[in-house]
Order: sequence, then structure tokens, then C-alpha cells
Amino acid sequence: MKTFQERLGIELPIIQAPMAGVQGSALAIAVSNAGGLGSLPCAMLSTEQMRTEFAKIRAATSKPYNANFFCHTPPEPDAAREAAWRAALSKYYREFGIDPSKIIAGPGRAPFSAEAADVIEEFKPTVVSFHFGLPEQRLLERIKASGCIVLSSATTVDEALWLEARGADAIIAQGFEAGGHRGMFLTDDVGTQVGTFVLVPQMVRALKVPVIAAGGIADAKGVAAALSLGAAAAQIGTSYLICPEATTSGVHRTALKSEAARNTTLTRLFSGRPARGIVNRLIRELGAMNEIAPEFPLASSALAPLRAAAEKLGDGGFSPLWCGQNASGCAEIPAAELTRTLARF
Amino acid sequence: MKTFQERLGIELPIIQAPMAGVQGSALAIAVSNAGGLGSLPCAMLSTEQMRTEFAKIRAATSKPYNANFFCHTPPEPDAAREAAWRAALSKYYREFGIDPSKIIAGPGRAPFSAEAADVIEEFKPTVVSFHFGLPEQRLLERIKASGCIVLSSATTVDEALWLEARGADAIIAQGFEAGGHRGMFLTDDVGTQVGTFVLVPQMVRALKVPVIAAGGIADAKGVAAALSLGAAAAQIGTSYLICPEATTSGVHRTALKSEAARNTTLTRLFSGRPARGIVNRLIRELGAMNEIAPEFPLASSALAPLRAAAEKLGDGGFSPLWCGQNASGCAEIPAAELTRTLARF
Repeated sequence: MKTFQERLGIELPIIQAPMAGVQGSALAIAVSNAGGLGSLPCAMLSTEQMRTEFAKIRAATSKPYNANFFCHTPPEPDAAREAAWRAALSKYYREFGIDPSKIIAGPGRAPFSAEAADVIEEFKPTVVSFHFGLPEQRLLERIKASGCIVLSSATTVDEALWLEARGADAIIAQGFEAGGHRGMFLTDDVGTQVGTFVLVPQMVRALKVPVIAAGGIADAKGVAAALSLGAAAAQIGTSYLICPEATTSGVHRTALKSEAARNTTLTRLFSGRPARGIVNRLIRELGAMNEIAPEFPLASSALAPLRAAAEKLGDGGFSPLWCGQNASGCAEIPAAELTRTLARF
Repeated sequence: MKTFQERLGIELPIIQAPMAGVQGSALAIAVSNAGGLGSLPCAMLSTEQMRTEFAKIRAATSKPYNANFFCHTPPEPDAAREAAWRAALSKYYREFGIDPSKIIAGPGRAPFSAEAADVIEEFKPTVVSFHFGLPEQRLLERIKASGCIVLSSATTVDEALWLEARGADAIIAQGFEAGGHRGMFLTDDVGTQVGTFVLVPQMVRALKVPVIAAGGIADAKGVAAALSLGAAAAQIGTSYLICPEATTSGVHRTALKSEAARNTTLTRLFSGRPARGIVNRLIRELGAMNEIAPEFPLASSALAPLRAAAEKLGDGGFSPLWCGQNASGCAEIPAAELTRTLARF
């Protein structure tokens, strides 16, 4: 009977969390080559970009890696809601001299598709992971037939049982502390979200498949604690955000290194779904969970020009500054070194 | 150099969380005799009741125990606010046939006082712990002069540093997962509250004094994980709530044993301060953090007759069903057995 680490073929029980928008293949390659599981976030990539990135990974490492996708149901665009959102942002458009009539829909985030499955069949990454549930059965079967190990995130025991029943090979227990988007998909009540300390042992008890701990883990002691709660591995995101291989923006890096990183919150303003980030001007002024932001992923388009204009001035007030509750592990060191440090317990 | 456990004189790194309203000396005695640190919550006791309870403990065990107090600043009663609160509850008064004009202020919760310090000097418990900060310097000095070890709860690193600077001998890191009242005292923004997985290592790094982990710990694996995060001991509350030695009400016990215990939230309805409990009718209908409830501890008086009337019908809809996020460790077994099980890792 192989252990989970043996099945994945990784030397260290460390999974680098896929973080769309702040990293590409470079971070994944560094972590995989160091003995952890590097992850490539694909939710914001075209299939062409995916192929380019997968090819880079294949050229740079023979180690296992993870390709991550979202699998939300895209909402119907709602003109009235979009207009209300832009009206709520109008004072900021004026402040930054932006003409809102010129805003075009951004690349957004696309769910896993038949075209993405083609890419998976072509590159056969060791692991394919999902956020917001699982893709439809037909697509999932194509991934499994390619020999990929399938992971998905759960934020409650109910979600974990749902994923296990539908064929996930291991489940990521995403505690309340985690940065970025909550993987929640059976509920939209953030009151149901529990801490890593609670979620990991509850899922270990309830599931047959291995559990990966995520949320608030930032150093080797945290990894050791996660394993002693019964996790088969730890998934770490925030700590990698200021590594040189990440593509994290300047304003985001500055915020992560500042006192501000001690104050994070769940907010739906930046995308339409609850995600944890550092409290900044937009959150303070509109309220983190304001329902005026359109449904995921539509909220981001109207913000894009504001974000760009503010960032040009070194101002992160309109940027999603994704960050978990524990930024204390952020270090400006190569990701390989960080990976080895995380596993030295 | 003595370890923290040696300084306390306890065999096991287990502290039973003081839980006002649901336990008295019997639970504390059982835990202390089993080798943990039993705790007596004194916030709802008169000094006469304290003397009776301390005498019972002294008669039943020679082991160390902890006396716990609140140290909030009592608010000025506000007639308009009380009237608004009763108006919000009026439909329930009608439903249960309660005459609100006959409601009298209940015993409430008193902060630590000179009279309580007299009792401490008389009984000299090994440990005196506080919630909501520390008492004024003059009173704290009397406790220290009695040879007691002083603990207090922190929900942020800032609060922990504040307590350490003012003389606390060890700090309880109260993670977001914990049941009952948040010990928060430097902020009233629940957005600042972080998970146990984050708070413990951050406090271990920031403090010179020992850190006790609390919140979401419900079994031996949880205790082991807390220790591997650097905690000197673990404080556990919820798991003890259905032990025979606890005085937990029937409706509360029923809720703890049900699926309902998986859905907790922070609410200020029952006391005026945020506390974690199982979502019930009052919370669902008024909203967990509704500002209409008067300031701590004044909110409870107007609820008392409703709670009593509903409980008579086996209905816990108006009772504070305090519970942490992890009720999976609740067991109807003697507290001594539970204590030993928690330490068997």
C-alpha cells in the first residue's frame, strides 16, 4: 500500500498552492524540482497559454506537478447589476480620470472545459486539482483516463464527502485561515467556514481518501502540526508570494511585507466570490462582503482599470491583495529553499 | 529552569477551560484530580458562592486548580437601548406569555473586584485566569503577592503583548474556533480574529512567556498538534460540556449531541459581547451580531425569562448554546477519563 506521498511521487509533504494571477510555471518548476509538488494555476490562462506553460514545466523538470482549474458555473451577465456596480465605483473612476464607457470585459476566469481536457490529455500532469467542486463527470473521466490524480478543495465536511463520492482521490481541507478564494461550493454562507485546526481532523475522520491541510500553515512547525492532525500533506500558498519566482505585483509584495498583512478579511468585491485578502481602501470604503459586486467572476472587469491606474501610482488600494491569515512565513528567498525549509521539522 | 507544566504542578498539559454558567467545582475537581488543571468560572458567582466553591475544591483535591474571572468595565445602563432591545423581543414575550414589565435584572457578570481579591488571598488557588484583559494593577498585585500564577486570554498578537507587558505569566491564545466569549479587549472588530493554527505560532514567536493553545482542540491529536505549534499546554472547553460533572442544561446537551453543533457562529445577542455558540432561533431571526442587544453584560436580563420559558418546553431557541467549532470531542464520559484521553497522544 503506497503512501499518498509515494503515489504522488514527491519527496516532501509540501504542495505549493496554485495562485492564479500571481504565479506561472516558474514557481511550479522551482517547487517541484525541490521535492515538493509545484502547481500551475490555469483558471486565467487560454488553452494556448496553458500549452506554453506546460511545455516550460516539462522542459525544466521531470518531477511531478499539479495543474489547477476552477469549475464554477459562469453566471448570466446582468446589465442592471453591472451598472449598479459601476455606479458604486464612479467616484473612483473620477478620482483616477477613468472613462468607464471604455471598460471592456477582461479575460476573467473560465471553468474547466473540453478544450482544457485536451491539454490535460496531451501533457498528463501527475495531479489535476480543482476549486469550487469538480467538473462534469464526462470531463472528469477524461482526466482520470489520462492517469492524473484528482484533488479538490473542501471547506466543510459535507463538501469533502461530496467530492469523495464523485471520485476525488484526495481532498484539500481549506481552513478559514487560507488566503485567496474560498473553495466553498455547496454553501455561500461564510458563517459555515471553520478553522484548519477543526476541519483537518473532522475530514480525516469522515473520509477514506487522504486529506491535505491548507490555511494558516507558514513554517515547518505548522506542517508538523498539520501532519499530527492526520493530514497526508500540507498545501502552502501565502509564504511563496514574495519568492522571486512568483509574479506578485509590487504593491502586493509591499503589502505582504508590511504590518497591513496582519489584517486580512474575506471579501467578494474583487471577483464576486469570497476570498481572503489584506484589507485595503476598496474593502474599507465599500465593505468586504458588499452584495453590489456582480457574481463571480464578473466583478473584476469594472475594477481592472482602477486597479491598473492605482498600481501605477504604487497604490494597492484597488488590487486584490490575496493573503492568508499567516503571512509570517513570507520570505524573499528562492522557492526551492522555502520548500526545503517548510519540510525541515 | 522549570517547564510551564512543572511550574503549574500538573501532570498533563491539559487545562479545562472555565465555562461560566455550565459548570461549577465538580468539573474542576474531576479534571484536577485526573492530572489536568481544573478551572472554576467565578464571573457569575457572588463572593459567598466563590467561598463555598473554593472550599469544595479544597476538600476534594490537593491538586492545583484555576479560578477564572472577567475584567470588563461595566457599562452605564442605557434605558433607551434597553427599551429598544425589549421591543425587539416583544413578539417573543407575547408568544411565551411573558410580562416584560416584571423582568428584573439578573445576576449578570461582575468584573474582578477587591472583594474577589479577598477570596483569592484566602484560598490562594495555584492559577488565577482572566478574560477581557487584566484587572487594575493594585488588584493584580494582590493576586501575585498571594503566589498565584496569572493567565489571561489574547485573540491577537497585540493583545498578547499588552498582557505580557502588564505581568501575565502565560497567555492563552484563543483561536477563532473557540466556543463562548471571545476574550478580545483591544478591539471589537471580529474581522481581526484569527484561527488557532495562526495565532499560536505567532504568539510563540512574539512572546517571552508560555503560550496556551485554545480553540478547536477536541482530541489527543489536536493537543499534539497544538504542542508541535509551540504551545506549552492546551485549553479545552467544548469537549467537557456533556460530561456528567458539567451543569450544562438539557437543551444545550441535546444541541451539542446533534447535527446543529456543526453550525456555530459568533453572536452578541446573549450577552452583548461576541461569543461563539450554536445557531438557534434567536440568532437566525435577529441576526447574530445585531447591534440592538445592549452592551455586555446587559443584554442577558431581557432574555432570561424567554430562555427559561422556552427551556421548560425543551426548546433551546433562546438559550446561549455556547460551543466551539469542533464539538466532535464531546463525550458523555467522566471528566477524568476525558482528561486522560486528551493527553494520550
